[in-house]
Amino acid sequence: MPVRVALIGAGRIGASHAEVLARRVPEADLVAVVDPRPGAADLVAGPLGATALTSVDDVLADPAVDAVVVAAATTAHHDLITTAAAAGKHVFCEKPAGLSLAEIDAARTATADAGVVFQVGFNRRFAADFAAAHELITGGRIGEVQLMRSLTRDPGTGPADPGSVPLWTIFTQTLIHDFDTLNWLNPGAHAVDVLATADALIAPGHRESGHLDTAVVVIRYSNGAIAIAEASFAAAYGYDVRGEIFGSGGMVTMGEGATTALRLHDIAGRAAFTSRSDTDLMIGSYTGELAEFCRAIQEKRPAAVTGDDAWAAYAIAQACIDSMTSGGRVAVAR
Amino acid sequence: MPVRVALIGAGRIGASHAEVLARRVPEADLVAVVDPRPGAADLVAGPLGATALTSVDDVLADPAVDAVVVAAATTAHHDLITTAAAAGKHVFCEKPAGLSLAEIDAARTATADAGVVFQVGFNRRFAADFAAAHELITGGRIGEVQLMRSLTRDPGTGPADPGSVPLWTIFTQTLIHDFDTLNWLNPGAHAVDVLATADALIAPGHRESGHLDTAVVVIRYSNGAIAIAEASFAAAYGYDVRGEIFGSGGMVTMGEGATTALRLHDIAGRAAFTSRSDTDLMIGSYTGELAEFCRAIQEKRPAAVTGDDAWAAYAIAQACIDSMTSGGRVAVAR
Amino acid sequence: MPVRVALIGAGRIGASHAEVLARRVPEADLVAVVDPRPGAADLVAGPLGATALTSVDDVLADPAVDAVVVAAATTAHHDLITTAAAAGKHVFCEKPAGLSLAEIDAARTATADAGVVFQVGFNRRFAADFAAAHELITGGRIGEVQLMRSLTRDPGTGPADPGSVPLWTIFTQTLIHDFDTLNWLNPGAHAVDVLATADALIAPGHRESGHLDTAVVVIRYSNGAIAIAEASFAAAYGYDVRGEIFGSGGMVTMGEGATTALRLHDIAGRAAFTSRSDTDLMIGSYTGELAEFCRAIQEKRPAAVTGDDAWAAYAIAQACIDSMTSGGRVAVAR
Amino acid sequence: MPVRVALIGAGRIGASHAEVLARRVPEADLVAVVDPRPGAADLVAGPLGATALTSVDDVLADPAVDAVVVAAATTAHHDLITTAAAAGKHVFCEKPAGLSLAEIDAARTATADAGVVFQVGFNRRFAADFAAAHELITGGRIGEVQLMRSLTRDPGTGPADPGSVPLWTIFTQTLIHDFDTLNWLNPGAHAVDVLATADALIAPGHRESGHLDTAVVVIRYSNGAIAIAEASFAAAYGYDVRGEIFGSGGMVTMGEGATTALRLHDIAGRAAFTSRSDTDLMIGSYTGELAEFCRAIQEKRPAAVTGDDAWAAYAIAQACIDSMTSGGRVAVAR
Repeated sequence: MPVRVALIGAGRIGASHAEVLARRVPEADLVAVVDPRPGAADLVAGPLGATALTSVDDVLADPAVDAVVVAAATTAHHDLITTAAAAGKHVFCEKPAGLSLAEIDAARTATADAGVVFQVGFNRRFAADFAAAHELITGGRIGEVQLMRSLTRDPGTGPADPGSVPLWTIFTQTLIHDFDTLNWLNPGAHAVDVLATADALIAPGHRESGHLDTAVVVIRYSNGAIAIAEASFAAAYGYDVRGEIFGSGGMVTMGEGATTALRLHDIAGRAAFTSRSDTDLMIGSYTGELAEFCRAIQEKRPAAVTGDDAWAAYAIAQACIDSMTSGGRVAVAR
Repeated sequence: MPVRVALIGAGRIGASHAEVLARRVPEADLVAVVDPRPGAADLVAGPLGATALTSVDDVLADPAVDAVVVAAATTAHHDLITTAAAAGKHVFCEKPAGLSLAEIDAARTATADAGVVFQVGFNRRFAADFAAAHELITGGRIGEVQLMRSLTRDPGTGPADPGSVPLWTIFTQTLIHDFDTLNWLNPGAHAVDVLATADALIAPGHRESGHLDTAVVVIRYSNGAIAIAEASFAAAYGYDVRGEIFGSGGMVTMGEGATTALRLHDIAGRAAFTSRSDTDLMIGSYTGELAEFCRAIQEKRPAAVTGDDAWAAYAIAQACIDSMTSGGRVAVAR
Repeated sequence: MPVRVALIGAGRIGASHAEVLARRVPEADLVAVVDPRPGAADLVAGPLGATALTSVDDVLADPAVDAVVVAAATTAHHDLITTAAAAGKHVFCEKPAGLSLAEIDAARTATADAGVVFQVGFNRRFAADFAAAHELITGGRIGEVQLMRSLTRDPGTGPADPGSVPLWTIFTQTLIHDFDTLNWLNPGAHAVDVLATADALIAPGHRESGHLDTAVVVIRYSNGAIAIAEASFAAAYGYDVRGEIFGSGGMVTMGEGATTALRLHDIAGRAAFTSRSDTDLMIGSYTGELAEFCRAIQEKRPAAVTGDDAWAAYAIAQACIDSMTSGGRVAVAR
Repeated sequence: MPVRVALIGAGRIGASHAEVLARRVPEADLVAVVDPRPGAADLVAGPLGATALTSVDDVLADPAVDAVVVAAATTAHHDLITTAAAAGKHVFCEKPAGLSLAEIDAARTATADAGVVFQVGFNRRFAADFAAAHELITGGRIGEVQLMRSLTRDPGTGPADPGSVPLWTIFTQTLIHDFDTLNWLNPGAHAVDVLATADALIAPGHRESGHLDTAVVVIRYSNGAIAIAEASFAAAYGYDVRGEIFGSGGMVTMGEGATTALRLHDIAGRAAFTSRSDTDLMIGSYTGELAEFCRAIQEKRPAAVTGDDAWAAYAIAQACIDSMTSGGRVAVAR
C-alpha cells in the first residue's frame, strides 16, 4: 500500500520533491500539493495528477493523507511539523527542522509524542558514494576515524542579493548538511567542540552586516577525530559536494562533480563537464530519502534520519554561531 | 495521457523493463504483463499493480492497450512484432528485432504499414555519457570522425553452458549494440565493409562447435572512418561498456565502470568498485529508451531508434558472420 | 661552469640529495660528502665519484667548493648555515633552517651579509603539478584566492618510537611544507593568524607527553583567504601530498598519489597503486630544487625559495605551537 | 666504470638522447657526438662537454669509445649497425633497425657475431606504467591474455608535407612501437597473422599516392589472443600512447596523457592538460632504455630489447604492408 503524501510548499525544491514522489518513488502516492500562493500548487500538482490546495488545514484534516513532506519556507518548518504531528501525520521536513535548538527539540518531542515517523532532509546520506562510504566505515574497513572533511559549494557567482540571505545561513542551512554527514560517518562518536572561521569573500561589501558566504569549521569528536567542514556560496565550476574520511586503516573519498563519464579531449586538454543544478546532481539522493521515509512508514519503524540527528547537526551549527561571536572554541550541546 | 503498455516476456530483462515502466517512466502506464509460463507474469505484475496474463492474444485484442514492449525470447521477436503491428499496437522490441535481415526487414515493413511506432532496444544511445558524446559529435566539436571504438564485455566468468549459447550470438546479440552505437556516432556515414576476428578463448573446448566468446570487428565507413567493435563474454572486473570516437578536432571517450564516485584508499592502493549487474549499470538508459518510446507515441512521431537502425546494425552482424565464414572482408548490405 | 657542491650529512635524505646532485643536476658537480660518523660519507661518496670527508671544516676551507647542501640533523642546521656563509659558501639547507624564529632570522642575516645564495628545501614548489598551479594562480586563472588546502601524510603505520620524535615536529618539520606551499600559492598575501588543532591519534599513549601525530591548522590570510593545513604521520595507503586552491574564478587541485598511470581492473574493482617512498614520489621535485639552487648561483641571483620564505613558514609553525598552548587563535609574526 | 658512448646523428631525437646520456644516465659517459652536417654536432656536444665530430670513422676507430647510440636517418641505420659491430662497438639503434627484414636480420647477425650488445629503441617498455603492466602480466595477475590494444597518436595536425613521409611509415616507424609492445606484453606467444586497415584521412589528397596517416591492425597470436594496434599522425589533444591488456583474470590499462596531476576546475568544467612533446612525455622511458643499454654492457649480458625483438616487430610491420597490398590476412614471418 503506497503512502499517501501531501507536499507542502510548491517552490523550486518542493516542485522537485513532488515530481520525485509522483514518478520515482513507487512507495509514495502524491495526493496533494499545498501552497498558499494563488496558483502555485496547481502548476506543480497538475501535471502529476495531484490535487492543488492553498490551505494546510485541509490536508491535515483529511484522513486520506498519511504523511506530509514539508518544503515550505524555513521559518514555517517548526509550526508545520508540530501541527502535522498533532494531526497524526508522518512528517518529512527539509532541513533545518527549525530556527533554533529549542524549535528542533520541540519538533522532535511533538513527533515522538504523536508516534509518527519524523525525518529530516539530510539527503547526502542517500547519495550512492556517501552511502557506500558509510557501509565501509561501519564495517571497519578504514579502521579508527582520525581526520574528516566534508564540503558544500554552491554553483555560480553567489546570491543575487547577499544582503537578503538570513544571517548564519551558511551554518544553519548549508553546512548543516556537512555536520550531519560528519556525525553519521563517525559512528559512535559525538561532536565535542567547534571552532568556526567565516567571512564575506564573495561579496565583501556585506562583511560588516555579517552576511557570511565562505566558512571553514573545525570540529573535534569524542573519539579524537578532527573534522573540517567547508562551504562557499559561489563555485565557478559548479556544484561541489565532497567528503573524505581518513582512518587508521585507510581512507574513503566521495564526490566527483562530473555530470557524466564523458570526457572531451581537444586542443585545451581533457575535460569533464561539471554540474550546475542541484536537482540534477542530487536527484538520486532526493529519491532515496523520500523512498526511505515511505518505507519507514510502511514498516512502522523510525526513519534512517531522525529528529535526534536533526538536533545534533543543528547543535553544531549553533556552536558555530557562538564561535563566530566569541572568536574561540565552543562546546557542542548534547 | 500516459501510454498504456503491456509487457511481453517476464524473464530477467522483462522484469526490469516492467519495473521501469511502472515506476520510472511517468509517460507509461503498465497495464499488463504477459508470459505463457504459469505464474511467471504474476510474479512481475503483482507488485506493480498490473494484470498478469498468459496469452499475447488477450493483449493484442484489448483496445485498452496502446503499446507492447517485447522482452520475450529472441526467436519470438519477429512474430510478436508483426502480429502486434497488425493489431495496431506500437512496438518496442529488445534487440535484435529478428534472426535475419529478412525478418528485421519484415518487421520494419509491418510496423511502417500499420503506422505504429517501432523502436528497438539499443539502450546505449540513452546512457548519459553516450548521449552527450552524440551531441558533441553532431555539433562538430570533434571534427571529422576518423577512428572509432565501441566495446561490450559481460561480467563474470562466462556462460554456464557455452554450448547452449546460440551460434553467432556474440555478433547478433552482443556486438549489435556496438554496431548501432558506431553507426549513430558517425552521423551521415554508413558501414561499407567489415572484417571479423573471433574465437572461443574463455571456453576453448567450444571452439570446434563455433561457440565464439571473444570478438574483434573492423568496420570501414563511407566517410573513411575506421571502427573497431570488441566483445568478450567474461570480464573478471565486471561490466565494461565503453566508447571512443576520435576526430580531426578531438576525441570523446565514454564508459567508466565505477559503480559510484567512492574511492577506497588502503594498503592495496586506491580502488574504485565496478559493476556486476547490467540492470544496475544501465538502469538509466533502460529508463531513457522506454520514456522515448512513450513520448514518440504521445507526440505521434517516429522514435529516436527506428527499424532502419535495427536493420543497419543487423546488416553489420550478418556481414560479420559471413566474414567469419569467408575469412575476409565482407561488404555490408544497404 | 657547474657549481662545485659539498653535501653535508650522509643520512637517508642526504644520500638521495647526493645522488641527485651527481646524476640528475647537470649544473652541479658533487665534489665531496661530509659526515662525522666513520664510514658514512664513504658509502655515499664512493659510487658517485666524490670525496668522502668527516669534517665540515675541510669543506669550508676548500676554495674548490662553491656551495654546501645541508642535510645534517635539524639541530645542526643553524650552525652549519652561519659558518658556511661566513666561509663564503652558498647554502642550500633542508627545512627547517633552524629550531626557532631567531635561529632562522640569524641564518637569513648571515647569508645576506655574506652575499651568498641561501635556499631552503621547500621542494613542493618544484613538483610539476604544484608548479603548474602556481603559474595558473599568478596568471589570474582562478581569480581571487578564497579557500586553500594543503596536506601532508606520511606513509605507513607511524613512527616506530613516537616518544623519540621531537615535540612539535608535526608543525616545524611536516606542516612547514604546507605552510610554505600556502604562502606561495596565495601571492601578495601574508598569514595573519592561525588556530591549531592537534592530537596523538595514531599513538594515543603519547598524548600526555605531547607527541602529536595528527594536526589540522586554520590560517587566515591578509586577503581574507582561509587556509587549512593538515598532517598525519600514518597513511595506510602511502604518501599523500595534495593541494587545493579555490578562487573566485575556479579551482586548482594538485596531488595524485598513484605511482604510475597503470590501472589494474580485477575482481576487486579498478585499482591504482600508491607510493610508499618519498624519494620515489618526490625525486622530481628534489631534482628541481637543487637545480634551481645551482642556477641561482650561476646566475648570481637569489634562489626561488629564500630565507624570508623560510622565516615566514616557520612563523606559522611557531604560531601553531603557541596556539596549542593557549588553545586559541594566535597572530602570526611578520 | 661508465660506458663511453658516442652519439651518431645530432637531429631532434639525437639531441635528446645526448642530453639524456650526459645528464641522466650515470652509467654513461658521453664522449662524442657525430654528425656529418657542418656544425650540427657542435651544437649538441658543446653544452654537454663532449667532442663534436663529423665522421663516424673517427668514432669507430677510437678505442676510447665503447658504444654507439645511433639516431641518424633511418636509411643509414643498417650500415651504421654493421660497421659499428665490426669495429667492436656495442650498438643502441633507434627503431627501426633497418628498412627490411633482411637488413634487420643482417644487423642482428652482425652484432651477434661481433659479441656486442645490440639494443633497439623500443622505449615504451621503459615507461613506468607499461613496465608495471609487464610485471603484473608475467606474474599471472590477469590470467591468460585474450584481448590486447596498443595505440600511438602523434600530436598536432599531421605532417607538414605528407607527401615527403616515406611510404609505409605508419607501420615501420610508428606502429612498430605498438607491435613490440604487444609482443612483449603477451609473453610466450608470437604473432600468427595480421590484417591491416589504413587510409589517408588527415591528408586525403595523398590517398592515391599511398601516404597513409591512420591505421588499425588486427593481430592474432599463437595463444589465441586478438590484438589491435592503432595509429594516427594527428591527435588534436596531444600525444596519445596507451595500452590495454585484457585477460581471463582481469585487465591492465596504461597511458594517461595528462602532463601533471594538476586539474583546473572552472566555468568550462574540470580539465587536465595534455602533452604535446614526445621528449617531455617520454623522457623517463628514453632515460630507462639508455640506462639499460649501458648496464647490459657493464654486466656483459644481452639487453632487455634484442635484435630478435627488432626482427619480430618488423615482421609484423612487413605483414601489414603485404596485407595492405593483398587486402587480406597475411601470415607473420618467424
